[in-house]
Parts: sequence; structure tokens; C-alpha cells
Amino acid sequence: MSSSDIFLGETIGTAVLILLGGGVCAAVTLKGSKARNAGWLAITFGWGFAVMTAVYMTASLSGAHLNPAVTVGIAIKTGDWSDVPVYIAGQMLGAMIGAALVWVAYYGQFQAHLTDPETVGEKPIEGPGPVLGVFSTGPEIRNTWQNLATEIIGTVVLVLAVLTQGLNDSGKGLGVIGALITAFVVVSIGLSLGGPTGYAINPARDLGPRIVHALLPLPNKGGSDWSYAWIPVAGPLIGGALAAGIYNIAFA
Amino acid sequence: MSSSDIFLGETIGTAVLILLGGGVCAAVTLKGSKARNAGWLAITFGWGFAVMTAVYMTASLSGAHLNPAVTVGIAIKTGDWSDVPVYIAGQMLGAMIGAALVWVAYYGQFQAHLTDPETVGEKPIEGPGPVLGVFSTGPEIRNTWQNLATEIIGTVVLVLAVLTQGLNDSGKGLGVIGALITAFVVVSIGLSLGGPTGYAINPARDLGPRIVHALLPLPNKGGSDWSYAWIPVAGPLIGGALAAGIYNIAFA
Amino acid sequence: MSSSDIFLGETIGTAVLILLGGGVCAAVTLKGSKARNAGWLAITFGWGFAVMTAVYMTASLSGAHLNPAVTVGIAIKTGDWSDVPVYIAGQMLGAMIGAALVWVAYYGQFQAHLTDPETVGEKPIEGPGPVLGVFSTGPEIRNTWQNLATEIIGTVVLVLAVLTQGLNDSGKGLGVIGALITAFVVVSIGLSLGGPTGYAINPARDLGPRIVHALLPLPNKGGSDWSYAWIPVAGPLIGGALAAGIYNIAFA
Amino acid sequence: MSSSDIFLGETIGTAVLILLGGGVCAAVTLKGSKARNAGWLAITFGWGFAVMTAVYMTASLSGAHLNPAVTVGIAIKTGDWSDVPVYIAGQMLGAMIGAALVWVAYYGQFQAHLTDPETVGEKPIEGPGPVLGVFSTGPEIRNTWQNLATEIIGTVVLVLAVLTQGLNDSGKGLGVIGALITAFVVVSIGLSLGGPTGYAINPARDLGPRIVHALLPLPNKGGSDWSYAWIPVAGPLIGGALAAGIYNIAFA
Repeated sequence: MSSSDIFLGETIGTAVLILLGGGVCAAVTLKGSKARNAGWLAITFGWGFAVMTAVYMTASLSGAHLNPAVTVGIAIKTGDWSDVPVYIAGQMLGAMIGAALVWVAYYGQFQAHLTDPETVGEKPIEGPGPVLGVFSTGPEIRNTWQNLATEIIGTVVLVLAVLTQGLNDSGKGLGVIGALITAFVVVSIGLSLGGPTGYAINPARDLGPRIVHALLPLPNKGGSDWSYAWIPVAGPLIGGALAAGIYNIAFA
Repeated sequence: MSSSDIFLGETIGTAVLILLGGGVCAAVTLKGSKARNAGWLAITFGWGFAVMTAVYMTASLSGAHLNPAVTVGIAIKTGDWSDVPVYIAGQMLGAMIGAALVWVAYYGQFQAHLTDPETVGEKPIEGPGPVLGVFSTGPEIRNTWQNLATEIIGTVVLVLAVLTQGLNDSGKGLGVIGALITAFVVVSIGLSLGGPTGYAINPARDLGPRIVHALLPLPNKGGSDWSYAWIPVAGPLIGGALAAGIYNIAFA
Repeated sequence: MSSSDIFLGETIGTAVLILLGGGVCAAVTLKGSKARNAGWLAITFGWGFAVMTAVYMTASLSGAHLNPAVTVGIAIKTGDWSDVPVYIAGQMLGAMIGAALVWVAYYGQFQAHLTDPETVGEKPIEGPGPVLGVFSTGPEIRNTWQNLATEIIGTVVLVLAVLTQGLNDSGKGLGVIGALITAFVVVSIGLSLGGPTGYAINPARDLGPRIVHALLPLPNKGGSDWSYAWIPVAGPLIGGALAAGIYNIAFA
Repeated sequence: MSSSDIFLGETIGTAVLILLGGGVCAAVTLKGSKARNAGWLAITFGWGFAVMTAVYMTASLSGAHLNPAVTVGIAIKTGDWSDVPVYIAGQMLGAMIGAALVWVAYYGQFQAHLTDPETVGEKPIEGPGPVLGVFSTGPEIRNTWQNLATEIIGTVVLVLAVLTQGLNDSGKGLGVIGALITAFVVVSIGLSLGGPTGYAINPARDLGPRIVHALLPLPNKGGSDWSYAWIPVAGPLIGGALAAGIYNIAFA
């Protein structure tokens, strides 16, 4: 794969991932959405199918990592780090584009939610700002070591599932059936390990949209919770590396 | 594929799509339905499996576009516009047949809902007439540019997912695994981008049933919201063309 | 396939179908069940996966029709009626075994539900006896022509989806991928067309358990609603024949 | 397969299974979880995708039995008991590791739930201790023969579905598509037969985490319900043997 295909694939793929993943958070959270209060199953299936759609669409271009933790896990497994910067650059750019598109698609809902005295003071599903949870994750109970541990454990499951597909060796990525299985692995992690921190399990998924939240001209948006921001970056990277280690010891 | 097979396939397929898609809206909305208030997950999975069933059934006849936005996207991709009128004619006829079949299957429920003073004045899930949402989409917050943008974004995701399957080149359509993946892409768009406008993402899906709503002898049915009707036609067509453009630049 | 394999396959398969399908109705309905009030999505996915499990398990023995409407549809399509009586006999016996197994698995729940003054007088999800809905279907609004039409329409969708798989020609039945697709077709019919009558779409599914309901020593069980019993037998048989007719005209 | 691969595969696989399966129970039960009260559908899909993820990950190492009832069923089918002790040892160790990881991932939630006077006295989804249901199963209505019968019936469905895949003959286990089908079979058993006892259908899934519950330093955790503990061990083992018997008579 050429560097330009990798960059294009990861940018488009991560943009679609965050458009759909952030979109389901907006749909379930914001005033004036038909899906308001559709619940945790909607969020977990929404993120799972977001992964499926994005992987399926871009696997032929870049292998569809769409997640620096996956890129790092594959680099440790294969020993080839040459494309890592291009992958991560595409992922970060794509995540920011995706978050901006969520804002466009839900423009009126953001305005309605953040100017109504009732909802602007309402506890969001995630994080301290009233709509930060549409962009980034946050813990329900703040506890540094536990929050980090939960993100590490969730990412180990994700990256180990990706590595054991045995399809990334060829550089061709996850493939069609892989897209479906990976979607349900992500639903599984959401249902089972998402309760404490909202399962970032992907540094680009959390940091990119958090930057966009800080930049967007949203009324009454509140803070971007930067003191927490390192956990959904460090946790997934540690988890990805740990998964590659387990893979190399137990499966290789 | 012969023109008659295309017309037959698109008519049957779109009829099944709207029978099942409109059916789940009736099931969740109408008084006297066992599924009443089953929620947004039921609606999104209902529409997704409606697409799967219809695509699976008719892919061998017409390639199962079932959506003018898909037909236009494929025409731009391939440069072949010769069958476009036959496709769209079948889709419009099928959508109207499907909407009429929903009325037959839920006849008593429509009567009960529209003659009970409580439910006839009740806010429907979608649109201004009390049961218009069973037939056509409508915005939760009316905002022309945003409503149009949301429909465009949703349709770009759908048509790009269809085009990147690389199976329409042969004219054979989506195929069996494609039917399942496409179903979950549609669930994804519903969960993530359906909140603002109810995700028409298909001109025939919206306009055909709206015409049937205007024609059917339903008591107290209210208006068909014609002032909004152009958005779920124009948005998806623009989205389908945009997806083909993105495909030709990034994926071809 | 030998007659004994067909009989064995249809008996085991339909027993598993009704054990799991009746089981989810018991789970959602009865006092003392952890799944009580889990809702319509649980019922529709429960029946869908019941079909998947049963088809997957017995496809190699009998082709896994598990439904007289499917058997009749295939007989009309192929012109071969020789095995029809063996299929239907196995289906009826299996449906009765499955319904009896639901009673065993939920024994304490049936006792608790039918001896508590509150629940024994409670409106069940389906039908007039307090637990008849665990066994058989019933309409929410009684209207002979509409109830019949809804069952016909639902069965046309089911049988047309089965016939267009093009796999039954070889006598090998639905196969592994077919089992999954068929499961989701059944979920789709449940979500979209199940609201008015509870979607029998299978004469054996309704009549076999209704006989078992009439025979079982359940306290305060009430009537078996025999006046309605012909509709979920006649409707699906007409629907199966109609689907075969549509298949022979449009797809063959 | 070597004994060490079998042991490693079953240990890792069952650890992932219980991490994700126990995790969804924690997510839905515990105070301070975003998924609290997400309902029975979340639990059943959570366990189903837990099975999928674990089977998919470890099928190449050990065939991914992950359940002594499956191991016993396959041993009876094939007549080869030589690897049974290694399988079961790995499954028990893995189940205990998985349960401990749930405790780590939900550490703050366990503390919050068990020290709040309101939730510590709250009826859990399963079992008599306030959080025992996160670890092990318990009946809603205590009735020895029925509880045993329900576990037997559920396990017969599971093991018969595994045996009829015809893929275990080669010792290679379930494979990729098998992982998905098996996931939905487990969802089906949960939805349809989980109501009375919480569907252990796996001795290691119940006994391993129950031991961990007894050992962990959880405040106010209450008893581990040892008087019930034999039923989710004996029932699944009897069910697995019965399924192998049915297989050998009807399918071999």
C-alpha cells in the first residue's frame, strides 16, 4: 500500500467511524433528536456498526486500522514501524473531520440542547460539559488507576481479536467477514467493559473529537475535561502493546 | 439484465422494502399494535432487515438498487445511464405498492388510531399528520439547510458503502453477504444520523409513500407535509452523486 | 433424503423452534422470570434466533422446512408433493414436543403466574387466556379479513425469501448462511408485520402448541381460543402458495 | 493440538468469555455504571458476543470449547477422552482469571454499590448476595428438579448446535462463521431459556466465578449460595452428555 492510499483510507475511514459513532451519542443525548434516550444498547450497536461500516469501506485502501492502538499492536507484531506516522496522522485528521460532521448533522439539536435551561444543566451520559459526551469519553467514577486499567483491558480484547484474525500479516486488513466480526467485538466491549469509562479504546476516537469540542463555537459548552484526556490516549496505547505481547507469546 | 427483469426486480424489491420499513413504523406507532412503543432500536433494526430481505430477494433480478440515490451513484460511477429510468420507475411503483400493503396489514390499527380522540391528537414519531410518519419522514427541528445536509451526509455513507463493495461493476448487485452488511450499514445510519430527519436517504422511500398517504381514504389523516417533500428527494440524490464523486477520486 | 431422516429432522427442528420461540414468550410474559417485560425486541430476536438454531441444526437431515407453509411453497415450486405428508407430520409432532418442553422449563413460572390473583387476571401479550400467548398467537384487534390478510402478507415475505435462496432445489435446504439470513428475515417480519396478529406465519407453530395448551394441566388457564385457530393455519398456507406463484411468475 | 496449546487456548478463551460475560452483568447491575439497568437484551447479547469474541480468538489454539459441557459432549461423540482433563483445567483457571478481571475493571463500581445502603440491600438480577449475580447464576424460583431440568434443556440446545456443525471432528473447533452462529445460539438460549435460572449452561462459567466471589475482599458481599452451586455444574454436564446421545442416535 502506498503512503497516500494509507493516509486517504485512514482519513476517510476514521471520519466515517467518528461521524457514525459520535452521531449515535448525539442522537441519544440531544434535545430534538428522534432517538433521544434510546439507551445503552443503541449506543453500543451504533458504535459497533460504525466500525463495521468504516472498516468495510476502507479496508482495500489502508487495511482499515482506524485506531492508533491497532496500528501500534500490528507494528509490534510485525516489527515494521515505517508506516505508523502516516496511519496515525490520517486517524487524527479523520477523527476531527468526523466530529465536525456530527456538528453539522446535528446543528439544530446542539443549539436547542445548549440554549434550553433545562438540558444545558442536565447531566450528560458522559463527561462534565453538557455535550462533551457526544465528542469524548469520561469516567462515571473518577479513579485514575481503575479508569486506566479499564481502558487497557478493553483495548487488549479489541487488539487481540484483530491480531488473531491473521489477516493483517498480508497488509490487506480485516476484510469483509472481519468487518462484521470486529463490529460485534466492539459491541461486546461496549456492553461488557463500557460501563466505567465509556470505552474510548482508541486514542484518535477520543483526542480528535475533544480538540474539535474545544474549537467549535457551541454556546454554553463548558470545559473539555483536559485533565482526563491523557487516560483514553495512554490506556489504549498500553493495551495495544500488551495485546501484541500476548499475541507474540501465546499465538505466534 | 433485461429491462423487464430490472423493472420487476425493483418493483418487487422496493415493495418489500416499504412494506417492511413502513410496517415497523406502523407497528411502533399505531394503537392496537403489539409492538407499540417498542422504540428507536426496533425502528432502526426493522428498516435494516427490511433492506436485507428486499435486497436478498431481488438481487438476482435487478441488482437490487431499490433506491434512486443508489441508481444515480452507480450511473455516475460506471458512466452508464441507459437503465436509470427503468430502475427509478420500478422503485417508485414498488414504494407505492409497499405503502398500500402496510395499510392493508394494519387496517384496523389505522382505523383505531385515527378515530380515538386521544391518539389522533397525539404527536407522531415523525411529521405533522398523526400517522404521516408511518409513510414518510419529517424533521424534528425544521431547518432547511441542516435537514438537507443531514440527508446528504447519511446518503453519502450509504452509497459509498454500496459502491465500495465492488460488486455492482458486474451488474449483479449486492449479493448475499452484501445484503447482510448493507442491512447493518442502514441500521448504523438510522442509529447515528436518523435523529434529526428520520433518515429518508432514498427519494422513492419517501415520495412514493407520501403520495399514497395523500390518496388513501384514512379518517382524520391531516396533511401530507408537501412543503418538506423536496428535501428527502433532493438530499439523497445530491448525496448519491457526491458519494460517486468521492468514490471516483479516492477509490477508483 | 430418506423419509425417516425427513421425519426426524422436522420433528427435532420444529421441537427446537417451538422450545425457543415459545420459551421467549414465556420468558417475557411469566411472573418469576428474569426476562419479564423485556419487550417486543426480545420477542422478535428470540423467534429469529430460534429459527436460526433449529434450521442450522437440522438442515442436513431434512432441509429444515419446519413450517407447512414452506413445505407447500416448495412443493408448488418443484411440483413434487411426495414428501409433504411426512414433513407436515414431523412438524406437528415437533411443535407439540417443543411446547411441552417450554412447560417443563418454565414449570414454576407457570404455577406462580396462574395462581397469583394479580397475574392470572392480567392481560397477556397475545390471546384471551392468561398464558395462551406463550403457546399460540391471537389478534390485538379482531377482524377476520384483516387478520387473515396480515398472516398471508407475512408468510408471502417469508416463503418468497426462502424460495429465492435457490438452495432448496437441491433438496439440501437452507444451509449455514441461509440460516442466518432466514433468522433476520423472521426478525424483520416480527418487527414489521407482527403488530396486528403476533405473526404465526406457520400453521404448525400455532396449532401444535394450541393443542398442547388445551391438554396441559395448567391451573386457571382459560380457553384456547379455538374460534381464531383457523386463521393462523389458513393464512400461512395461502401465503405459502401465493409466494410460490409469485416465484414461478417473476423469478423462475 | 498439543496439550500446552489446548491449555493456553482454553485458559485465554475462557478468561475472555468470563471477563466479557461477567462484565455485562456488572455493567447492567452496579451503581456508577453507564449501562446500569440496560436490561435483559443487553445481558443476552453481551453473553452471546462474549462467546463469539472468545471462540474467534482461540479456535486456532484449542478448538475453543470454553465449556466442560461442550468438552464432554465432544468426548462422547468422538470416544476420545484423552484431552478432557487439560480442557477442563484450562477452562476453570480461565474462568477464575476472567472473574478477577471483572473485579479490576469495575473496582470503583463494586465499592460504590456495596457501601451505599440503598444498593447493598437491593435485590440483584441473580442470586442472593447483592452482587453474586455478577459472578454466578441463581434461580428466580427455587425448585431443584425444575432448575436442573432448565439447565439440562438449555445445554442440550447449545451442545447439539455445536456438535451438528460437523467441524469438531477435525479437532479444529468452531471456525470463524461458527463463532458467529454460536454467538447467536447463545443469545437465543439466553432470551428463551434464561428466565428461570439465568442460564449457566457451562459448569466452568458458574463454578469458577463463584470461587472468586468467595475469595475476593468485597465489602458486604454476602454468601456465595453454595447450596445451589451443584445445579449449574450437574445440569450442563448431563445436558452435554444427553446432546451427544441425541447426536449419535439421530445425526451420526
